[in-house]
Amino acid sequence: MSNQKRLEKSILNRRQLLQWGLIAGAGVAASSIAATRLLGKRSSVIIPPVPSASTDRSGMNPMSILRDFDYGTVTQENGRTVREFRVEAQTSTIKLDNAHSFITWNLNGRVPGPTFRATEGDRIRVVFYNRAGHSHSLHFHGEHPADMDGIKPVKNGSVMIYEFDAKPFGVHLYHCHVAPVTRHIGKGLYGMFIIDPPQPRPPADEMVLIMAGYDVNDDQKNELYAFNGLPHYYMKNPIPIQQDQLVRLYVLNMIEFDPVATFHLHANMFRVNQTGRSLTPSYETDVITMGTAERHILEFSYHNTGKFMFHPHQDNIAEAGCMGFFDVIGSKA
Amino acid sequence: MSNQKRLEKSILNRRQLLQWGLIAGAGVAASSIAATRLLGKRSSVIIPPVPSASTDRSGMNPMSILRDFDYGTVTQENGRTVREFRVEAQTSTIKLDNAHSFITWNLNGRVPGPTFRATEGDRIRVVFYNRAGHSHSLHFHGEHPADMDGIKPVKNGSVMIYEFDAKPFGVHLYHCHVAPVTRHIGKGLYGMFIIDPPQPRPPADEMVLIMAGYDVNDDQKNELYAFNGLPHYYMKNPIPIQQDQLVRLYVLNMIEFDPVATFHLHANMFRVNQTGRSLTPSYETDVITMGTAERHILEFSYHNTGKFMFHPHQDNIAEAGCMGFFDVIGSKA
Amino acid sequence: MSNQKRLEKSILNRRQLLQWGLIAGAGVAASSIAATRLLGKRSSVIIPPVPSASTDRSGMNPMSILRDFDYGTVTQENGRTVREFRVEAQTSTIKLDNAHSFITWNLNGRVPGPTFRATEGDRIRVVFYNRAGHSHSLHFHGEHPADMDGIKPVKNGSVMIYEFDAKPFGVHLYHCHVAPVTRHIGKGLYGMFIIDPPQPRPPADEMVLIMAGYDVNDDQKNELYAFNGLPHYYMKNPIPIQQDQLVRLYVLNMIEFDPVATFHLHANMFRVNQTGRSLTPSYETDVITMGTAERHILEFSYHNTGKFMFHPHQDNIAEAGCMGFFDVIGSKA
Repeated sequence: MSNQKRLEKSILNRRQLLQWGLIAGAGVAASSIAATRLLGKRSSVIIPPVPSASTDRSGMNPMSILRDFDYGTVTQENGRTVREFRVEAQTSTIKLDNAHSFITWNLNGRVPGPTFRATEGDRIRVVFYNRAGHSHSLHFHGEHPADMDGIKPVKNGSVMIYEFDAKPFGVHLYHCHVAPVTRHIGKGLYGMFIIDPPQPRPPADEMVLIMAGYDVNDDQKNELYAFNGLPHYYMKNPIPIQQDQLVRLYVLNMIEFDPVATFHLHANMFRVNQTGRSLTPSYETDVITMGTAERHILEFSYHNTGKFMFHPHQDNIAEAGCMGFFDVIGSKA
Repeated sequence: MSNQKRLEKSILNRRQLLQWGLIAGAGVAASSIAATRLLGKRSSVIIPPVPSASTDRSGMNPMSILRDFDYGTVTQENGRTVREFRVEAQTSTIKLDNAHSFITWNLNGRVPGPTFRATEGDRIRVVFYNRAGHSHSLHFHGEHPADMDGIKPVKNGSVMIYEFDAKPFGVHLYHCHVAPVTRHIGKGLYGMFIIDPPQPRPPADEMVLIMAGYDVNDDQKNELYAFNGLPHYYMKNPIPIQQDQLVRLYVLNMIEFDPVATFHLHANMFRVNQTGRSLTPSYETDVITMGTAERHILEFSYHNTGKFMFHPHQDNIAEAGCMGFFDVIGSKA
Repeated sequence: MSNQKRLEKSILNRRQLLQWGLIAGAGVAASSIAATRLLGKRSSVIIPPVPSASTDRSGMNPMSILRDFDYGTVTQENGRTVREFRVEAQTSTIKLDNAHSFITWNLNGRVPGPTFRATEGDRIRVVFYNRAGHSHSLHFHGEHPADMDGIKPVKNGSVMIYEFDAKPFGVHLYHCHVAPVTRHIGKGLYGMFIIDPPQPRPPADEMVLIMAGYDVNDDQKNELYAFNGLPHYYMKNPIPIQQDQLVRLYVLNMIEFDPVATFHLHANMFRVNQTGRSLTPSYETDVITMGTAERHILEFSYHNTGKFMFHPHQDNIAEAGCMGFFDVIGSKA
């Protein structure tokens, strides 16, 4: 009996599993293909067209960040896969909304930084140029040697190469570890680091959602919040997803100052795979509580079409920018 | 092998299970019956008499709210069960304690609102009259179509009918989703929504406990807290329960402003069934952390008689009203 | 198939398990022995020598508290094991850092108090002398009769004997339950209470880490934080552990005023055994969120040598004293 089936049988009934789309044949539509990416086994996933070229005036484009995975420059060295990522710490100003500009410390001009992605066992090489004007560093979650832990500041104008094996599979993150860390994270120096299991997870429409806060007046509290960098973005630009198709959210709470953030999905339930450290989800809910730096894989599909909200259930956080819509497009539309 | 037994074997030893009362013959007394309700298979559950007619001066009665499940008006339509619930949003003042009156927005004069209860697959019809003086709505957790999601305000004097299939089984909630949601929830517009699995859970003394906060001076912080509406109520009116009998608590954290609430049971452990989405509990503890809108089934029985506290382990929240006693009555008393 | 193997197979693959050191032969080195304690089956665990006699000027020694388990005075009464613990509540001043002295209420001069340890089924007898100048009590988590629940204040100068059976196995705690409890805990009256399962857990380097906060200016917020009593201690005195050897952390969050604390381990993952109520861990991560009074067993081993941080990922809490290093010593060094 497979691992997945065993877990299913031990906790859930078949009816539930059909709803989850975890039994063969259910869940992921295998018909017409309009995908913007064709990645091997993911070729059967339908990604509805994004309504408009939605690059914001700020220069940031959360719609693009959502499904943008950086697999690095791949080479083979001594028979193994090496993925090299080149990133530059920068200082730049983004327009959070009509009233607030914010000086960010960021990677490659992006808040959050690139979503690095590898397969367990790959060799990772991150060439980190610090051009941001202050000392910074990159501390990765996951396993690595002590001298690759990123707790030593890298001076402005310097280069540091972080190199280690990608392990273990799961959803990880990276962030600057220079004190005060709340400030270096709050200013934007963080991103997601996904390590895929050797045998890939089943096909799904995969997305990254990173929750963050902005302390715009330096009072050690957040006045604005965002998914993927820009407050209120996915309210104005709902995320189109396909009806009855598996969505795999990689969700990270990167909010400083607030002790936790919750994540709530409207009119649906999601299955939780904690830190992505399992091949299958372990339980189902529609509200989850996450401390800073916690991250999970959340899986779900919508059978109903139309617009459905997602946001922390801390409504002051949601209403200050950390709120969005999925727009479920009918399969036969 | 049944699902329950499989989970048991995989995680726990038999001795533990006997303590949990999950093995046939243990846990639920099947002898003399003094129940105040006889609900089919629950007929063997003993509910000790409540000490006094404990309706509070405020008109609220948390002792009655505790075990009061609203199954709606049941009809059959085209061969299926339809449950119709009629509720009215109102504005009324309750006396929280000798020093504090509080203007609530509520359903049917209750804070929390009625505990709606159905079986998975039933058709739910909630007729919502808004007579509260402001725009309100009812947003349900669980699955439903986009136009039944309750994010559209319903104007004062209007009626909205929310209709959808009850799914999936579990512990859900409903609340007003008009912005600012912290305020609409904080004023009292919320309640629990239980969907039973098709095959009912084993007999138990079932209770609802909803944790809430009161921001009595509009400073975006809570000064008072309560289980089921009234601060300190279950300290003055301990909840009688039967020795060695399974208790099934449906617990919801509806506290706004505070990031989380914990729930602690004295001198005992409880088994956690997260969001009630499983047929069996998955782990055991005596303190659990819950974000706003999180809710679980907690199961336990007391072998020792006497009075035992329950409260968040955030002691300032507990001491400000969110604290109570179970009074375990001996089986042979 | 054993319980452990079943869980393993249901969730994880063999490769993962080897990494975890849960398959026979992996994980715990069985070679040269330099242990400071030889406790039966734990004789094969290597505890590297502590660098210096590191008793602090404050009189507190977190390095000693770390692996100091109080098994009590053991006698046999009517064929069963009785463990008697004699503790005295005291008031004394400790030096938290160069700038802050703090008047503690404590047990036997220690903050945290002794780590009581027993095996499930033992009889526990705690003789509690209150010499601290105020009323105090000891409330234990775990099961016990109502009159042993420790919610009644014990007057200064009085003695109270708490006696009950040690159950169920797991990681528990005790603390003063006199109101305001935030204050009595914040001043230092708490400790860990470990109940081992009848069949002991596998050999490991076992340690206690208790997170606490200090409200040094009585503003109902914490200005300093610590692991095992003294801010910044394990930063200056890294904890030596052995490469490739299983570490079993008993972690408790005893921080008042802050809603939660997270715990993060650098460059590694840990397996979580919630409240220690299982014989095996249930999932793996590197950040966990814990409400006040939550406690878990976290298991891991380091393959890489060198210094690795641990701290809450709330960086203001970490940087205010709740931060430390493990120093992984090579097996062949």
